[in-house]
Amino acid sequence: MTRVEADDLIAFTTAVFRAHRLPEADARASAEALCHGDTTGTSSHGVANLTRIYLPLLRSGRANPDAKPERLVDRGPTLLVDGDRALGLWLAGAAMDLATIRAADYGVGVVSVRNATHFGCAGHHALRAVERGMIGLVLANCGHQRIAPAPVGGPELLGTNPLAVAAPAGRRPPFLLDMSTTTAPTGKVRAAARAGERIPSGWLAGPAGPETDPAALDAGTARLTWLGAPGPAEHKGFGLGLAVEVLAALLPGAGLGPLSTGTEDDDVGFFVMALAPDTLRDGFTEDSEALFSAVAGAGAQYPGEPESLRTRQSHADGVWIADPVFHELRAVADECGIRPPTAL
Amino acid sequence: MTRVEADDLIAFTTAVFRAHRLPEADARASAEALCHGDTTGTSSHGVANLTRIYLPLLRSGRANPDAKPERLVDRGPTLLVDGDRALGLWLAGAAMDLATIRAADYGVGVVSVRNATHFGCAGHHALRAVERGMIGLVLANCGHQRIAPAPVGGPELLGTNPLAVAAPAGRRPPFLLDMSTTTAPTGKVRAAARAGERIPSGWLAGPAGPETDPAALDAGTARLTWLGAPGPAEHKGFGLGLAVEVLAALLPGAGLGPLSTGTEDDDVGFFVMALAPDTLRDGFTEDSEALFSAVAGAGAQYPGEPESLRTRQSHADGVWIADPVFHELRAVADECGIRPPTAL
Repeated sequence: MTRVEADDLIAFTTAVFRAHRLPEADARASAEALCHGDTTGTSSHGVANLTRIYLPLLRSGRANPDAKPERLVDRGPTLLVDGDRALGLWLAGAAMDLATIRAADYGVGVVSVRNATHFGCAGHHALRAVERGMIGLVLANCGHQRIAPAPVGGPELLGTNPLAVAAPAGRRPPFLLDMSTTTAPTGKVRAAARAGERIPSGWLAGPAGPETDPAALDAGTARLTWLGAPGPAEHKGFGLGLAVEVLAALLPGAGLGPLSTGTEDDDVGFFVMALAPDTLRDGFTEDSEALFSAVAGAGAQYPGEPESLRTRQSHADGVWIADPVFHELRAVADECGIRPPTAL
Repeated sequence: MTRVEADDLIAFTTAVFRAHRLPEADARASAEALCHGDTTGTSSHGVANLTRIYLPLLRSGRANPDAKPERLVDRGPTLLVDGDRALGLWLAGAAMDLATIRAADYGVGVVSVRNATHFGCAGHHALRAVERGMIGLVLANCGHQRIAPAPVGGPELLGTNPLAVAAPAGRRPPFLLDMSTTTAPTGKVRAAARAGERIPSGWLAGPAGPETDPAALDAGTARLTWLGAPGPAEHKGFGLGLAVEVLAALLPGAGLGPLSTGTEDDDVGFFVMALAPDTLRDGFTEDSEALFSAVAGAGAQYPGEPESLRTRQSHADGVWIADPVFHELRAVADECGIRPPTAL
């Protein structure tokens, strides 16, 4: 493992996106979104995906560095946006910023996005609402990419269809649920495969039952399961995945996994919503702080608490990068003619 | 089992609520919501709960038969409503009707409700949006009632915190996800206990692992688990339960499980949302029909499909009621001075 400063990693990633012709603000926002994975300890969704997802998207032309998203419909609290194949890393945050502006007036703001690309950690974008004292919801499908079949098996139908819900909690770390509706995201399965580790029973299902070899996913000998597996309620996780497909992709008219004949995650759809509690009542933040204090006081960490602690540590002490990923970053730096992050 | 006509069961249940001083329209809407459980085959949430939940609510005064819900804040697409302790069975549907009216103008309508009571099947209320060609979301917490602890154990913190998402699918049955965020709702655990049956491994967790005796819940020797149990991702189900608590109860200022000192499901909160796809784009319903045709064509039943088929059967052939429940209904009829449903 190699340790680097969080700000150095973000500056490096910004420079990589600049070198791929993104404007400064979009490059910076994309870098912050991508490094959210590393600073929160979700390294499966961090800079490891630079060479796996985002640079291939830009180099192949599937993502548009000069994207100018267009507001196709504007009904006040609800907008339909064509993402113009922008990097989802910055587009989703911009959508949330717009949703919060409308929510400040109307109580709710919904930005329904089509023609987008992969946005990294859903939670990063949901947290932008929390900065404005609001509740944020972010859902995405995986466009034309189909990764997981129904619990009964059969052809792949949907992506991992993530969802995030964030809420302010006063002086406590914000509540932040950020999850794939599959039991585990593909990024974590592949990170385990790269590390040569077994995965927990339940992430993958093979013909004979739970499969703990992560390589079985890309070998095609096991399927990604839905939340609930291997328990009695996997149909609920599949239903949640379908609900995300409806809200994030069917609503805006984005690519739909079950109707796709392609294999790439193009024409991704987002559902981005902000709710402004202060437009409805006083005391929301105080009540939220009390709520999450009570949950924490009962001995239960709540989603967002460990990630918040880890983020603080990352900014104070640096971020740990797996050595193979650090080597990749150095190669990217050479290609872009920029300096790599400094190993501490 | 006793078979009765669906319309007869609804008329009887309407008469029971009328006898408990509900106005005709509210009694009828409540009966339709309650019998949705029986007609869809979810008998754990049907008329079996008349004597278990709703009549005790009315007789104790915890539910107000004359309730006149008040719009505390109206921001156009977003409203805050005090439920005046109305039966949730009709209040949630009325909230959805209001949400759809606002969504027709604004694209989205959100009705945030506090001071409500138990609403039966979330899906019944979400389906009201589908009748208007819209997507419906319905979430509720359980007010002051705490049923399930965190996955690490400890004191009970939250209710079963259900959520429902419904969407039109053209000539196909609507998509309808209707689920508790716990692995199973308490109603199904108790129905199994009444029937003397074991429950699937994963619904309850005892000190030594999964518990399949449903009586262990009310005996206090096992806890209700969250979606994901006994698999590796129960923390996600707990996170979903907390997300429902935030949206349904923290937003409107309803009773919060973790802060409660009571035991009853008073001051329940709802989050009711309608989204009007036709305000954003053409072709939504056609695309939805194609989407769910593709899912069904892949051999996967989607949520709402079996329930829709069962509802059609129930209206054609009658509804089956467990004999102990039918005896209860006869006793209720005697008490109310009305005629019981006719056994076919």
